[in-house]
Amino acid sequence: MSGISEFRPAKIPSDDRGLCYGDGLFETMRVRHGRVPLLERHLDRLLRGCEKLGISAPGRDILIRHIEAAAASLTGEGVVKLLLTRGSGGRGYRPARSGPRLVTSIHPIPGQRNDRYHSGVEVQLCTTRVGRNPATAGLKHIGRLEQVLAAMELRDEADEGLMLDELDQVIEGTRSNLFLAGNEGLVTPVLDYSGVAGVMRDWVLEAADRLGMRAQESPVSLDDLASADEIFLTNSVLGIWPVICIRELGWESACGPITRRLMNAFNEEIGAWDD
Amino acid sequence: MSGISEFRPAKIPSDDRGLCYGDGLFETMRVRHGRVPLLERHLDRLLRGCEKLGISAPGRDILIRHIEAAAASLTGEGVVKLLLTRGSGGRGYRPARSGPRLVTSIHPIPGQRNDRYHSGVEVQLCTTRVGRNPATAGLKHIGRLEQVLAAMELRDEADEGLMLDELDQVIEGTRSNLFLAGNEGLVTPVLDYSGVAGVMRDWVLEAADRLGMRAQESPVSLDDLASADEIFLTNSVLGIWPVICIRELGWESACGPITRRLMNAFNEEIGAWDD
Repeated sequence: MSGISEFRPAKIPSDDRGLCYGDGLFETMRVRHGRVPLLERHLDRLLRGCEKLGISAPGRDILIRHIEAAAASLTGEGVVKLLLTRGSGGRGYRPARSGPRLVTSIHPIPGQRNDRYHSGVEVQLCTTRVGRNPATAGLKHIGRLEQVLAAMELRDEADEGLMLDELDQVIEGTRSNLFLAGNEGLVTPVLDYSGVAGVMRDWVLEAADRLGMRAQESPVSLDDLASADEIFLTNSVLGIWPVICIRELGWESACGPITRRLMNAFNEEIGAWDD
Repeated sequence: MSGISEFRPAKIPSDDRGLCYGDGLFETMRVRHGRVPLLERHLDRLLRGCEKLGISAPGRDILIRHIEAAAASLTGEGVVKLLLTRGSGGRGYRPARSGPRLVTSIHPIPGQRNDRYHSGVEVQLCTTRVGRNPATAGLKHIGRLEQVLAAMELRDEADEGLMLDELDQVIEGTRSNLFLAGNEGLVTPVLDYSGVAGVMRDWVLEAADRLGMRAQESPVSLDDLASADEIFLTNSVLGIWPVICIRELGWESACGPITRRLMNAFNEEIGAWDD
């Protein structure tokens, strides 16, 4: 259920550096009962990103005020998006010392098939590669053209697409992080050269630690994927999705016990969607 | 001289996919005596980009009308920027079949030191790397965060910065393409994995052919750079800039005869800036 009947977007000046150069960051946050359960993690990532990009960040209290005001305008479940750009000005690519621009917006829960996020999703291998760049790896910056191109590839029956880098390493989903699970514990791709370091990915790594599971960041190949016992995806808005099929690899599986255990931990700490 | 006393940016909705995901392209075009000398080349690149990104492009006549209207509002020399985004809508990264959004704006000639663009520029080697991604290589898409970070590195005395990829290949300037010149003719870096394929780069490759110079696209290393007889940069707004110094490499040179010959050809065909 979404508390949004209509969303009227704010207007921003066309010289905003986010629009001109992708010079900004964003966070897409789940709101449940008026609260943002992963708020602190989202703020941490956003502020780390500002530091890395040299954007003078607003205070944490100001960010919280913006997010809470947007969350309050949702009557039920939904999503608050916070876009933070470097603002306007500068000489071409070189920025001025202008303050950042904050834009909040509210959105319904994405997807028409939330049931599949519990019972299991079908994943497609995308041919669009995710670029390698240590300067921006891990950040949730605006430049997501690769993900747009990958999402355009998706067949109707695919709930999500997986992206490789040009070295044939599996990096992430178009809007999710990837985990492999088995007797050895959890493995998630290293994100030093590409990919977005998701807040749910961090949550899972910490939860695994609490639950006494071994978890590591490591390069992941297609062979690793094909031979995984369990595969799941994480996204801060939708939580943990068991993968039940990757057609290109002939990989099929029901939701496994490790994935189920983490989903239960998530539902206990953060709460399942009311759907 | 610029005919702009004040530039009031248009406002665009904050759900524009260019702002949200860097889902769009742009062209920055030089206007001289009310005309855009490289118009056809800019349109070619923009339309090639639209095709590659699956953006339903407006007709060439519509684009020309927008550009000419903006150019007409310049009273002297200046720059017209055309931003073309995929518009609003879609489910997250996956676009809807919405039409594109066009935003034109006018700008003064960049830089306070145009004289240096004739007498020679000092170039700095940037530590920020340009990412490798065959899906978006060559396109002038919105996501220019790497170039922003590189431009932020520039010392006061540096007119432009050179960027390498993570394989230590020299790719381009932050806002220009790179050429090496010598007895063997011209060499410019291959842009199959990264970089923007500039319209002036194309112009130079064709002009070299007309002038009977050998010209090739090839990988370029720092050693190639250090041992080059002549080095110049190209940018469709500022033309051809002789490089006279790369301090990190201890490379210094006066503007050489090949560079001078191409600058003369450019001034004859396109016209020098009136400064």
